[in-house]
Amino acid sequence: MSDERFGLRRRALLAGPLALDGGASLPAVEIGYETYGTLSPSADNAVLVCHALTGDQYLASDHPVTGKPGWWTRMVGPGKPIDTDRWFVICSNVLGSCMGSSGPASIDPATGQQWGMAFPVITIRDMVRAQALLLDHLGIGRLAAVVGGSMGGMQALSWAATFPERVEAAVVIAATARHSAQNIAFHEVGRQAIMADPKWRNGAYYESGDPPAAGLAVARMAAHITYLSEAGLTAKFGRRLQARPDGQAGAKTFGFDADFQVESYLRHQGLAFTDRFDANSYLYITRALDYFDLAEEHGGMLANAFRDTATRFCIVSFDTDWLYPTAESRVMVQALNAAGARASFVELSSPFGHDAFLLESPELDRVVRGFLTWGRA
Amino acid sequence: MSDERFGLRRRALLAGPLALDGGASLPAVEIGYETYGTLSPSADNAVLVCHALTGDQYLASDHPVTGKPGWWTRMVGPGKPIDTDRWFVICSNVLGSCMGSSGPASIDPATGQQWGMAFPVITIRDMVRAQALLLDHLGIGRLAAVVGGSMGGMQALSWAATFPERVEAAVVIAATARHSAQNIAFHEVGRQAIMADPKWRNGAYYESGDPPAAGLAVARMAAHITYLSEAGLTAKFGRRLQARPDGQAGAKTFGFDADFQVESYLRHQGLAFTDRFDANSYLYITRALDYFDLAEEHGGMLANAFRDTATRFCIVSFDTDWLYPTAESRVMVQALNAAGARASFVELSSPFGHDAFLLESPELDRVVRGFLTWGRA
Repeated sequence: MSDERFGLRRRALLAGPLALDGGASLPAVEIGYETYGTLSPSADNAVLVCHALTGDQYLASDHPVTGKPGWWTRMVGPGKPIDTDRWFVICSNVLGSCMGSSGPASIDPATGQQWGMAFPVITIRDMVRAQALLLDHLGIGRLAAVVGGSMGGMQALSWAATFPERVEAAVVIAATARHSAQNIAFHEVGRQAIMADPKWRNGAYYESGDPPAAGLAVARMAAHITYLSEAGLTAKFGRRLQARPDGQAGAKTFGFDADFQVESYLRHQGLAFTDRFDANSYLYITRALDYFDLAEEHGGMLANAFRDTATRFCIVSFDTDWLYPTAESRVMVQALNAAGARASFVELSSPFGHDAFLLESPELDRVVRGFLTWGRA
Repeated sequence: MSDERFGLRRRALLAGPLALDGGASLPAVEIGYETYGTLSPSADNAVLVCHALTGDQYLASDHPVTGKPGWWTRMVGPGKPIDTDRWFVICSNVLGSCMGSSGPASIDPATGQQWGMAFPVITIRDMVRAQALLLDHLGIGRLAAVVGGSMGGMQALSWAATFPERVEAAVVIAATARHSAQNIAFHEVGRQAIMADPKWRNGAYYESGDPPAAGLAVARMAAHITYLSEAGLTAKFGRRLQARPDGQAGAKTFGFDADFQVESYLRHQGLAFTDRFDANSYLYITRALDYFDLAEEHGGMLANAFRDTATRFCIVSFDTDWLYPTAESRVMVQALNAAGARASFVELSSPFGHDAFLLESPELDRVVRGFLTWGRA
């Protein structure tokens, strides 16, 4: 099934009902996804890669809207760390998002209208449940591995906690087992920026053809700062001024244009984002992240999420990540150790902050390649 | 001169022209200010306290709009670290702000209309120059000390660099000698939030009576996160939920209300701010901060700002301040040492992040009291 609107290659309509953590249930779920490589006859080589907040299924193939290469082409492909000559790699657009999966921009079958804010609030675990339906549909019982960075890492954790018998190994990169007060605070700023935009119209902006792009751009700008390290921003931009249109060296204009390169960069990040993302999806997915607290789902003790698990874990953090700092990965590792799980942990050094998992990091490549093939000669 | 609108006790109309760094000049400048204590006959006991971005002159007296106590009543008063039994303390609303000093909400004498975005872009040094005019007006040649935290600290630095012969001592708390790329980035998010609000109307919203409060609130929320430490937010709010209106313990609502206490707190901070602050002033003052780079004003070498100075300096940072971290204070201290200036430096420990200078900090009290009285038995 394909859909020209999204440039989708694959989309599955999965029969429900899908019962959600919030109490609602979806009668059926559509999931947009991509696959890379070939599923073995015994279906034992499947690797699920989970994407981050604003990511999508275009992991290792060009993005149909932006035309840019997939977001993890460095990591996934023939001969690459997640080697598609060996693994059958699946990446699906999360529930609640806007690249072919059911979300606020989808049609509510009960009304024939786009859901908008009538779409039920979802959790990370609900995203994982929808992915499990997709695996059923694809005939995959057990994953050789689930791999993800940032929100993808939270999904990997939730997979291991929710369906331990279906997960042989989990790679959790630059993630956390719960959103902190500061994490929630930054997301709340983004949500308020969207909701303050009069074009948001309580989420019912689809028919207007005029979405709350200004609010969404501000939300993206605020979030984007948290993805980069202070030192990385200084190295990349410092206080350098924008060159003038005539090519002359930049100067302060004593006005409110983007004098500094960092201002211009942020404005571009905000605007470009609005071309490819739905504002309501941003509300729903940030909410799912803020609700995420894996310990809370298990009686307040994180180790309980992993009791008697046979899953192998690899936890990776980056030293300059201040969004989900190494201390949060240590919390996971301590819980895994307390639960008697097999867990390895490494803090990698990178100048790039949280975004390091998406960028050039030969150490991360080695860790992921090695962990996936461990014990499989 | 008083003005009921602002609850002002003191306001001076200072003859110009005041030449500004951006090339424009103001024919005259109004400055709202407060004083505490008594000027000595020889005018040798004057201490200028400079306020932060959203601060004002109500240092140690109730705020006329909010009714709240002054923002540094802990520090300033009879017997307090800045002892008004001894010092004549002046605090003036900065140029560009909105509590009685000339700014975008003031009347442009040339047009009889409020300036709006026609007000010239100003710098920290311009704020200092306007304060110098106020001191002339008050008959104060030389300051026993200039003291400030955050943007107030930058003014203190700029005072010592611009009018070294007028400053005996400078206390620079939780400040920086230049805005970093990350500092600029956060301010740009705030400016874009304001400018994205359709009620902003390119700054010409005064006559509408309907200012861009939603955009200003978002700007304040984003900035507010940077004033607090991650650990402080966790200690204060963690993931605790709002109690329900009926007093029952909070629960996730699976909606977009403020479920978490930190969300409610931030929303309140944003809204409360819009009652007392002008959105255009927020644009102008953040711009002045982003433009601030004291080294740049002195041939690219910070030490040059302090060559042959007789001013004594006290530099104070807080260990959990990630807005202007201790490393930035060290840059100042190294430059002061290189210039042969008398400088003392202390990093204080506090859980409160950047806001520590406004909050309970007995160590800060001792440092300020001791430094001001040093050498004056």
